[in-house]
Order: sequence, then C-alpha cells, then structure tokens
Amino acid sequence: MTPKQKSEGQSLAALLAPDILELLETSPEAVAAETEELHPADLADVAEAMPRESLPAFLAALPSERAGAVLEYLDEEIRTELLEQMTPEQAAPLVAQMTPDERADVLEEVDEETADDILEAIPEPTRRETERLLEFEPESAGGLMTTEVVSVLETETVELALAQVRAIARGKRREAMNTIYAVNAGGELCGVLSLRELLAAPEGARIHDVAWGDVRHVVATADREVVARMTTEYDLVAVPVVDDKGRLLGAVTVDDVIDAIQEEQTEDVQKLGGMEALDDPYMQTSFLALLKKRAGWLSVLFVGAMLTESAMSYFDNELQRAAVLTLFVPLIIGSGGNSGSQATSLIIRSLALGEAKLSDWWRVAIRELSSGLSLGSILGALGAMRVLLWQALHGKGIHLGPLQIGNDYGEHYGLVAATVGLTLVGVVTFGTLTGSMLPFLLRRLGFDPASASAPFVATLVDVTGLVIYFTVALFILSGTLL
Amino acid sequence: MTPKQKSEGQSLAALLAPDILELLETSPEAVAAETEELHPADLADVAEAMPRESLPAFLAALPSERAGAVLEYLDEEIRTELLEQMTPEQAAPLVAQMTPDERADVLEEVDEETADDILEAIPEPTRRETERLLEFEPESAGGLMTTEVVSVLETETVELALAQVRAIARGKRREAMNTIYAVNAGGELCGVLSLRELLAAPEGARIHDVAWGDVRHVVATADREVVARMTTEYDLVAVPVVDDKGRLLGAVTVDDVIDAIQEEQTEDVQKLGGMEALDDPYMQTSFLALLKKRAGWLSVLFVGAMLTESAMSYFDNELQRAAVLTLFVPLIIGSGGNSGSQATSLIIRSLALGEAKLSDWWRVAIRELSSGLSLGSILGALGAMRVLLWQALHGKGIHLGPLQIGNDYGEHYGLVAATVGLTLVGVVTFGTLTGSMLPFLLRRLGFDPASASAPFVATLVDVTGLVIYFTVALFILSGTLL
Repeated sequence: MTPKQKSEGQSLAALLAPDILELLETSPEAVAAETEELHPADLADVAEAMPRESLPAFLAALPSERAGAVLEYLDEEIRTELLEQMTPEQAAPLVAQMTPDERADVLEEVDEETADDILEAIPEPTRRETERLLEFEPESAGGLMTTEVVSVLETETVELALAQVRAIARGKRREAMNTIYAVNAGGELCGVLSLRELLAAPEGARIHDVAWGDVRHVVATADREVVARMTTEYDLVAVPVVDDKGRLLGAVTVDDVIDAIQEEQTEDVQKLGGMEALDDPYMQTSFLALLKKRAGWLSVLFVGAMLTESAMSYFDNELQRAAVLTLFVPLIIGSGGNSGSQATSLIIRSLALGEAKLSDWWRVAIRELSSGLSLGSILGALGAMRVLLWQALHGKGIHLGPLQIGNDYGEHYGLVAATVGLTLVGVVTFGTLTGSMLPFLLRRLGFDPASASAPFVATLVDVTGLVIYFTVALFILSGTLL
Repeated sequence: MTPKQKSEGQSLAALLAPDILELLETSPEAVAAETEELHPADLADVAEAMPRESLPAFLAALPSERAGAVLEYLDEEIRTELLEQMTPEQAAPLVAQMTPDERADVLEEVDEETADDILEAIPEPTRRETERLLEFEPESAGGLMTTEVVSVLETETVELALAQVRAIARGKRREAMNTIYAVNAGGELCGVLSLRELLAAPEGARIHDVAWGDVRHVVATADREVVARMTTEYDLVAVPVVDDKGRLLGAVTVDDVIDAIQEEQTEDVQKLGGMEALDDPYMQTSFLALLKKRAGWLSVLFVGAMLTESAMSYFDNELQRAAVLTLFVPLIIGSGGNSGSQATSLIIRSLALGEAKLSDWWRVAIRELSSGLSLGSILGALGAMRVLLWQALHGKGIHLGPLQIGNDYGEHYGLVAATVGLTLVGVVTFGTLTGSMLPFLLRRLGFDPASASAPFVATLVDVTGLVIYFTVALFILSGTLL
C-alpha cells in the first residue's frame, strides 16, 4: 500500500469532479448517463472532491440505487454530515437503497433524532428489517450481517431453485448471491451450496441431494472475531448467521470480515502503543478525543513509574557511595524495556492469530526464559566490554564532538563491569519473561492481551530493573565500593 | 477469537483421529466414504492429530483430489516434513491436485531438491503452469494468484458462455469461479461480470454487451499490499492479474488477500516491538531463528543506548553537585519513551491503512506538537505535584512496605519541582514529535515505517531526554544547587 497508489487513485477521480459539477448546473439529467461506467467507490471519490453543498444535488441526479451505493463508499464523516443536513424525505429513499447491513451502520453513525426521522420515512418492510438489524451489537455477527441472502427449501428441485436464483439476480442485487442456503420448512439452516455447484448439479436432483449438510455458521450474538476466525480457517466468502433456534437470519460477507479484521488490528496496534483504541481513523479524530485516549494510560503509567523515584531514594546510600552506578541506570532500564517490548509484541500477535493458546503458557515461559537468558548474556557481554574498553581508553584524549571517548570508573572498574554485565542478564531475562507472560495473564483474567502494551511492560521493568541493579551491586561491590 | 473457540474446533476433529486410524488398519478402503462429509480444513485437523508416520497411508486412502485439498490446509511444518519423506511418485499426484497457487507455495516451502523431484513427476501441462508461477516473487500478485480463472471471449453469446461455465463447473473446481473475465482475441483483459450477472443477462446478448468495461486489475509484479488495497477499496472477491501487455494471467482470490493482510500485520507488530519480522509463526520458529531475529535489533539499540552513559558522564559535575536530580532520571526518560511509543503506533497504523499520506506530515507534525505539549503539561504537573507532596509528607514517618512515603529534596525543593515539571513538558513533547515524525521519515527514505519501533523511539528519546533534563536543570538551578 504505497501512498502513491492511493493518491493516484484519488486524484484520478477528483479530476472528474469539475466536469460533473458543470454538467450538474447545465444539464443535471445527463449526469447519470455520463457516470454510468464508474464503480460506486470511484463515484464516491468524485463526490468527496466536490464542495459539500453540491452533494445533495449530485446524489439527486443519480438513480436512487446508484446514489445508495455511493453512500456506502462515502467517507463516514462526510456521509454523516450530509444525512444530517438533508430532509428525512430526501435521505430516506437513498438510505433504503443501501444494502441492509450498511443501512443499519449508517443509521448508527448519525445522531439519534436524524436516524429516527429517516427510519420513519423508509417504507415497510425495509423499515422493519432495518429496525431488527439495529437491535444487534455493532461488533456482533448480527450487527455485521446482511439479510439479503438467497435461501431455497431443501426439498425443492435444482431446476426450480435455479429459476428462482435467476429471478432474484435480475431483480435487486444481493451481496451474498454466490452462496445458496438450504432451509427446512421451519426456516432452520440445513445445507449450503455455491452457485457453481447449483449450476453443475444433475437435472432432476433435489437441493438436499446436492447441498453440503455440515454448514459452518455463527449465532447472531457471536463476536466479530469468531466470524473472522471462521472465514480465514475455511476460506469462506460468506458466513451464515442463525438465531438461537438455528433459523437462518442472514450472512456476513467477506468484505465486512476484512473491514472487521483491519479494525481489530488497528485497535491492537494502538493498545500495544500504550493508549486506548480510537473510535475513528487518526486523521478524523478530534484533537480533544485524541488527547483523552492518550492522557489516561500515560498518566496511569506515569504514576506507576513514580515508584522508580522511590526505588532510587531507597538505594540513596548506595548511590552516594558508588556514584559510578548512576551512569548506567538509563542503559540498564532501557534494555529491560526493549526486550520486554519484543516479547510482548510477539506473544500478543501470536495469541490474536490463535497460534498460541492460553494452555501454551508454560511452553512459552520456558522458551522465553531461555531467550531472555541468551539475549541478556549478549547484552551483558556488550555492557561489560564497554566498561572495560572505556576504562582502557581513559585519558587518551579521544573526543567525538562534545563527548569524551573513555572514562574512569575507579580502581574497582572490573567489579563495575561485572555488576553491569550481570545486571543486564537479570534485567533482560526479567523483561523478556514479563513481556511474554503478561498477555497470557491478561487473557486469563478476561482482559484484552493487547493491553499488555510496550509502555506498560517497560514501566513494570523499569522499577524491577532498579531493584535488580542495586541488589547485584550490593552483592558484587560489598566490601569495595559499597 | 477466543482461544476456547479454537481449541474446541481442534479437539472435535482430534476426537475422530483414533477411529480413522483404526479404520486405516482394518479396512483402508472405507476411509474415503467415512470422511466424505468433512471439510478439508477439518480433515487436515484430523491428520494433524495423527502420529506422523500414519499420514502417508491416510492421504493414500483418500481420493487424490481430496488428499490435495487436505494438503492445502495442513500445518506448514507437518506438510513440509511429509513431502520431504514421501517419494516424488507418491507426492506428485497429490501436489498436482492442489490449486495452482497453493501448489507453487508448497514447492517453495520444501527443500530445492525435493521440489525439483516432485515437479519432474508432475505431468504436463500442470508442470509448466507451476514452473511459470514459481518464477514470480512469493509476495507479488503473480506469486499469490491462481491460474484457474474462467475467461470467455467478449464476442461470445451469453448462452454459449453459460454452457461453457456449466461445463467447467462440472469438471475441476475453480477457485475464482464466481467471476467471469472477458478477453479479446489477443487474450487481453477487457471486461468482467459476476456469475450472477451472467445468469441475469438477457438471452441473445453478447458478453461485451453485458460485461463491465472498466476492470480493476493489477500487473503480476505488483506488491501484495497493492492487491490488498484494491480488494478492500472495491469490495472485490478476486483481483485479476495481467502481464505487462494487459493479457489475463490469473486472479488473486480474497482468501489469499486476507492471509496477506494478516501476514503484513504480523510483520508490522513484530517490527513495532523492535525486532525483525519472523518468517514463520512464533510457535513454529526454532529457538535459534527466534534469537537471531531479536538479538540484532536489541544489540544495535543497546549500542545506541550507550550514549546515555556518555550523556550522564558529560553531566557528571552537575550530578555530583545536585545528587537529587539522579532520583528522577528513570521517571523522566521513561515518560519520554511512553509518549513516543503512543505516537509511533498511531502513525504507523495510519500510514499502513493509507489514512495518512506522506504529504500529510506537516499536518500531523502540528497536531502532535500540540498533543505533546498538552500531554507533557499533564505529566509535568503530576511530576511537580509529586515532588511538592513528598516534601510535605517528609518526616511524617508514613511507610508503604519497605518504601517511605515522603522525601527531603532539600531547601530548594520548589526549584527541583519546577525542573522536573518543565523537563517533562520538554521530554514528552520531544518524544511525541519524534515518535510521529520518524515513520514519515523512514517511508520517505524508502524504508518500512514500522521499523520506527517503540524501542527505537524510546532509545532515541532516552539520550535526548537526558540532555533536555540537564539543560533545564542548569537553567533553573544555576546559582542555587548548580
């Protein structure tokens, strides 16, 4: 997804906007024919490039089915503003033409009063259908599903079913058209077949002879993550949704599953960065909303991090007697934070994809303990070498800008090197283990593992890292510096 | 994606494994009929629950088309091991039955010698087709596409095309079957229509009358991110792939697009955590491979973080004269790192989704500068209040475990509070700005923005944070403590 790709696509559609605006003034009746070949997504790009006040006239110049499709692709913010400005009588015919799932989504975006007014102006049975969809949680299977699915009775013949499908295909567009669901007389989902399987079925056969009996489905209350998992595991293009009695209600199509996957991923990345997930895209979030989502966690972590001051005070005696220890504090706690950040990202993603399960925690713990010890040994060796090297270079007068290469760590520099090296082994091991186990713990307690953010782990490790540092120092330097 | 969901699914299939193993020994010819109703993904779960040595016999007991489909869903590690153990004559018929894109993927996973042997045992023209697919980069449109698409001549009648499609549907399964591509005599892609549009077309019409002329397509060398972007933007179930002359080569189906999106996301999260992206899932990556991917960045960052020791040494004089400053070092640099981590996650995700573009950098910079100043003011106020509060509580003898509540920061404690507060404003603003601008800079330089990992930003901010701290201290404490 290079930005070039995206901006090229936008400018291409934007180029058409002035021509269409002119046409809209001179002969609005020609707009529909002129834009006939454009994909609704591109038409939406054209609309976004227009001045906002021309939008109602533009949509009015299109056949209402096309205008409804454009609404589906329109930028959320622009769409909400547009619908709130239009009269319910203008808005309702367009909204009624949207696919049922998008229609419900749109009505959830606008303010409640506008939504009620538009709903009231939508004719039955579309209104009732929309009201039913609005009852589901937006992030549940019911909230994502479209009700425009093709279902046939399992006892029907293939020929009759095919004729029915052709009739539906000539009428309204149906999103989940490529999959045909078989139901029994009670409306219960009992089979599935693809349009191509229906085409390939022998003449005279009945639906229950050719449909697959074992249908993968979800209940309407299932979380969107369950729908996403099922889609990716079985390579589905639509997941049928049933009520608690097994009756077919609709289906979630793959395009909505992809949107759900992207949204979940965005939430995970934002949580991993140490903030609350945003409700809207970054560029469309208001400054105050953005601040609120960030300040909360940042303040909580800050108050937690105040414990580092307490730890430093607790070891004040040691710090005063062995001031050289101070120099390595940022290096040591930073390394703990970095190794924790690696581990937590690895495990959060692994849990999100279902590669690692809760029961794998001890396998992961053993693995990360070994990883931590190995990584800690590498950094510990580098750290000790740096002390010895700087001591050896001390007094040679080598400078790099304002910085002096080499330093004097005193007569016990060897013990200082050992302290730094050994501390790094401990801190990196602790950071790695904490970073990897925290996501498991959070999931076990019913929280989102992604809340084990890099800053959360870093803060935890900062405090503990100081305690490890001074404990090691007391052990090694006792009798010399301490 | 609760882990319960996943483990339930696995254990369900695993429950069948012993029965099927027994059947395999007593009457292997009955295995095919017994497992007929299972989805290949579930059959793969059964296979994964079996002892490895029974796998060849199990696959041999299935019709080769089914066995090929099971291979497609089988765990990558088990599949590679299996194919490398089988003779080329055993493996080739199964591999030949896989969809062309999966077949090419599988041959890229096994070692080169095995791949060559299996390829040689695959009959023409399947072999030539596979060799052609293997020439594309695995992460390009060509590497992801299947060649099994349905194409018809644009001059054909709808009836002839439908008869052709029915014939194909009765024969081999075609992945991208729901979309029909129209080509001209030269093989160039010139139209597209869905199976349902073909069904709904008026009798006697020709394909070019009913197909959509403006086909969204990609060239075979396009990156998988371009394919993903196009799929999500236009809600496609397949994206046609053409060569540099516009001739139809195949199509990337939506299930492979979802896989590509998930893989990209995993890479981004791992990079964001401060490591190289893994080639395989975490649980399947060997300990040494894991260590290699982590040790590199961790060591580079560690060497960079050594600059904190240099900075501390540079301000050694100030540290000795005003030892109280030492106490706040971890708190201050930690806050800079946390705010940087928030900003970098936000911007990396925003760039990955194409919400923010390279040209938006200055808008983001202004926004993040304001965010940084606001967040810094909040933390600065909290920090200064903590100093004043602890000074007030000093000597009251309040203890929390081993920690004393309250501390004596000396007679100039007011100035210390001001130093800590002002430094936090500076450090958090700098962290936020660095975290948000680094991804833009990396993209501008042609690198992956996700390399602006949380640890990278934290390390950058640690060093600068110390310089900010001591500069502010020199300014405020000059004449009193310094």
